[in-house]
Formats: sequence, C-alpha cells, structure tokens
Amino acid sequence: MYTLEELFKKVQSLFENEEFVSEPKRLYEPIAYTLSLGGKRIRPTLLLAATDLFGGDIEDAAHAAIGVETFHNFTLLHDDLMDKSPIRRGKPTVYRKWDENTAILSGDAMNILAWRYFLKKPHVNLLEILRTFEKTSMEICEGQQYDMDFETRDDVSIEEYMQMIRLKTAVLLASALKIGALYANAPSEDIENLYNFGIAIGLAFQLRDDLLDAYGDVATFGKETGTDIKDNKKTILYLTALEKGDTEQRQKLRRLFSETPNNPTGKIQEVLNIYASLDIKSSIEKTISEMHATAEQSLLTIKRPETNKTALRQIAAKLLDRKV
Amino acid sequence: MYTLEELFKKVQSLFENEEFVSEPKRLYEPIAYTLSLGGKRIRPTLLLAATDLFGGDIEDAAHAAIGVETFHNFTLLHDDLMDKSPIRRGKPTVYRKWDENTAILSGDAMNILAWRYFLKKPHVNLLEILRTFEKTSMEICEGQQYDMDFETRDDVSIEEYMQMIRLKTAVLLASALKIGALYANAPSEDIENLYNFGIAIGLAFQLRDDLLDAYGDVATFGKETGTDIKDNKKTILYLTALEKGDTEQRQKLRRLFSETPNNPTGKIQEVLNIYASLDIKSSIEKTISEMHATAEQSLLTIKRPETNKTALRQIAAKLLDRKV
Repeated sequence: MYTLEELFKKVQSLFENEEFVSEPKRLYEPIAYTLSLGGKRIRPTLLLAATDLFGGDIEDAAHAAIGVETFHNFTLLHDDLMDKSPIRRGKPTVYRKWDENTAILSGDAMNILAWRYFLKKPHVNLLEILRTFEKTSMEICEGQQYDMDFETRDDVSIEEYMQMIRLKTAVLLASALKIGALYANAPSEDIENLYNFGIAIGLAFQLRDDLLDAYGDVATFGKETGTDIKDNKKTILYLTALEKGDTEQRQKLRRLFSETPNNPTGKIQEVLNIYASLDIKSSIEKTISEMHATAEQSLLTIKRPETNKTALRQIAAKLLDRKV
Repeated sequence: MYTLEELFKKVQSLFENEEFVSEPKRLYEPIAYTLSLGGKRIRPTLLLAATDLFGGDIEDAAHAAIGVETFHNFTLLHDDLMDKSPIRRGKPTVYRKWDENTAILSGDAMNILAWRYFLKKPHVNLLEILRTFEKTSMEICEGQQYDMDFETRDDVSIEEYMQMIRLKTAVLLASALKIGALYANAPSEDIENLYNFGIAIGLAFQLRDDLLDAYGDVATFGKETGTDIKDNKKTILYLTALEKGDTEQRQKLRRLFSETPNNPTGKIQEVLNIYASLDIKSSIEKTISEMHATAEQSLLTIKRPETNKTALRQIAAKLLDRKV
C-alpha cells in the first residue's frame, strides 16, 4: 500500500516524465503549458489510490491517470475560453496567452490526447474502462451546458443545481475511482460503492468551493472573494437563501443578482448580510458534513481492510475541510 | 457484395434511424442539426465498402461508420467557427445559428459522441481500431494547425502543402477504409494497401477541390469560384505557379496574394491569367491522374477478386472526376 504522499509524488513524477510538445508546436505547446500549471492533481491521485486499494499494480493504471488529468485540463481550457477567464492558477489562460482559435484547436487535441493515454495498454477490463471514460466525458459536457443554461434562468431549483454539479464536477472524481478499481479487477459491488463515495465527495467539494468564494480568507484562499456574487452566479448559497428567505428577502436577492455595479463592494455586502440573517453558511456546512458522512458510509461498505482506506479518507478530508 | 448505391442507402438509413437529440437540448440540437445537413457521407461509405470487400458483415461496422462521420462533422463544426464561415451546405453554420460557446461545447460533445459509437460493440480488433481512430483524429488536428500556420507564412513548399492535406484530409479517408477492413479481419498487408489507396484518393480529392474553386462551373459547382484567390489561400495552384513562374510572375503573384481589394474580380482575373500562362490547370489535372493511377495500383495489389472492388473504384472515380 502507498501512502497518500507517495501517491501524490507518483502522479507528480508521471507528469514530469511525460513529453507533451511535438510538431506542430502551436498545437502542442498550449497543451504542455496547461499541464505544467499543476493544480492539485486530485483525479489521477484518486485513480491510483483506487487501484492500490484493491491490490492492483499502480503502474498498470498510470497512463489512465495521465489520461483523466489531461481530459480534466482540456475541459478547463475550453471552459476558460467560454467564460472568457483571463487567469488560471495565477497564469494567463491559453486563449489569452495565444488566441481563441489556438484554444479551440489545442483543446480538441487535448481531448483526443486523453484517449491516447487510455489506449496505451491493453487490459481485460479495457472496454468497460473506456465506456466509463466516454460516458463521464459526455456527462461533463452536459453539466457545462446546464451551467450555461442556468445563467439565463431565474427558476433554477436546488435539485437542478445539485444535478448540474454532479455532472460537471462529481462524476469525474467518481469515475477516476471506478477506473482505478477496474484496473485492479475489483468486484462490481465494491466499485459501485467506491463510485458513490466519489459522487458524495465530489458534490461536497463543489459546495465547499461555493462557500469559499463567499467566506474564504483572502490571504489563505489566494484569490478574490465574492466573485460569484459580483458575477450573479446562482450558487448553492444563493439558491438556499432564495428557499429560506421571506418574500422581501427573495425580492431583494433577485434584484441584487440582476445588477452589475462598477464597484460591487456594497452589493456583495448586502448579499452577505442576507446570507448571514438566514444562516446560510452553517446550513451549507451542515450539508457538506452530511455528504462527507454519506461518503464515509460508502467507503465503510467496501470489503477491504480499513487500514487500506487511509489514503482515500485523507483525500476526502483534504477536499472537504480545505481553506483553499 | 453490395453495390455502391446500396452502400450509400445503408449509410443514409443509419443516420435516419439514429436519434441525436437528448437533454440538455442546447448541447445536442446543434449536433443533430450538423448531422442532418447531409453531405456526401464518403467516409462511412468507404468504411462499409472496405468491410464488404473482405467478406465482413457491414452490420458489425455500422456503428463505427456513424462514428467516423460524426467525428468528421465535429471537425467541420469547429473549423467553421475558427474560419468564421457563415454557411455550410447552404445552411447557417452552428456558431452563426446559435453562438460561439454553443459551437465550442457541442463540438466537444460531438468529438466524444464519435467515441461512443466506436465503443458500442466489442470486436477482436477493437483496440487496433480505436488506436487507428485516435491517431487519425490527432493527425487531423495537426493538419488543421499546419493549415492555420501556413496563412502567415510565405515560404510554404509544395511538399509541406501535400503533407498538410495528407493530415487534414487524406488520413481520414484512408483510416475509414482501414477500420472497415479491420472489422472484416482483413490481412495486414491488404489493409496497408487499402490505406495507401485511401491516402492517394484523399490527396487527389483535395487537389480536385483546389481546382474546382478556381475552375468549377458556378452553376454546377453550386458556389462562388475564386474564393481561395480572394482569401489569399495558398493552394496547390498558387504554390505550383510560384514554382513554375519566372521572377516577375512570382513577384506579381506574391503581391496579388497580399492584397484584399473590396471588389476582387480584377485580382482573381489577374491570378487566373498567370495560372493560364503557366498551364497550371493541366499540370494539376496531370497530378490528379497520376495519383488516381497510384491508388488503382494499390487496389490491384489487394488479394480480393477484382469484381469485389467495383464499389471502391466507383467512389474513387466519383471523388476525382467530380464537377462539384
């Protein structure tokens, strides 16, 4: 068994040893650039941790770990273009550093590159692994589309929001775990429980993200807070406030979320005041804790020694209790 | 054995019987729209013809035929966005009918959808089929990047141009044939010859396209001619003229291809005059004929009864002698 730290190091070395640049340079350099920006590498680490949990050889799954991270970074590259986000991980995004067409085409190539990694080695479960990856890839596109659709709708329910973040965020964490387990020939019942563990931590991870945007400590969080409020983004905080608020509060929130003042400080404060009066922060913290408990329940059901589950427990804790 | 007409009908019915729309509509409707615009459906027809040539069951390869056409249409969708082309097959392109973000995301989903079709059924050669598809997909992105790179270069050689159109156009025709043959468990030597047949007709197909843009009969061709000259696109005609022309002609051509007059009629005529004085049209016609002969040579080498090769010979003739 590997410790979480060893798994992180393994993932790190996988990316350091890979050469992403080839000809034509203008196609491959943005791919290498995007993958060099780092990030937490959560998905490949989850994948290898799952292989390890079921006694598989993480070397068998290493190329799939690169594949899943490459796909994830492709979605970030195209999302940044669609959202016109100038900065990712403190550096200019691809469409800003190069241009829009470069971002479109190198993103497309990156999507295909993910498949190349998945096809590197045969495996008895390869067809199921590839089908899992394909289904998940498509679900992520669906999640992104729902997210874009929600921007122009003012009747989004909490249930719809949870379904959107399930597609956009949770399924890739869950599938990374499932794919890792398939490389270790894990029993299908255990795989299902592991997948459910991934969905629960994925949902809670996104709710934590929504909370941090409003309540993160700027120094620790490393980025501006209140941007979701400024951008009128209907996160779980807003939707919960709409549900819990009285008519007056709902009207005020709806009005505030239709405005884009040049200086958003006052608007952010007004929204935070409504959230505070409705106890939104602790309400979402409670949901995150419940989901964490659901995830733990799924993990407990998996028929492997509890000591082998340490790395996964640690990742879950890292993701859900994080300050950044 | 199926006749070419039967194969075309089969491909037609495959697309008619497929339901491409799902939720969220905004993601899937542009996919269904793009695939409903028709086109010649050359690639899926080649794929099924190859399966049939080697005595395979075309039903085994039908989903891959849909996959290869779906991928091709995904590249058109994103190319139209990158080129800002307003019209495709007489209808508004996706980015014009919807918007740029819709074109990015539904294109991404279409790329993934192609994989879904390839993964529908297991096959003893599936890993090789998928690797062929992946390699080809990436080569097409490389070809598109070279095409974009060439726009800002004035030292593109004929050799580089041929390599670019090999990647951008020929490899997908060749791979469709190879994949079809793999579904019929064809011998690897025959597959290689069939692939080479596909490359030769693919290259000649693109040269025919370049010729038609300058010399197509507007009524038959159904679109404006001279657009490549108007847009300063360095096609095989331009590059051959640069090679064959004297210093004065070269200078004049270079100058004309750096201008974008509001009314391009005079410019187009001047370029066509240079082409005429250098016999460019018959020079390219000759190259097309030579490539057609090379393709025929590869086809002859394939160890199958000559009568079984009729459909492939007919497609080649259709593609290379076409007026549209």
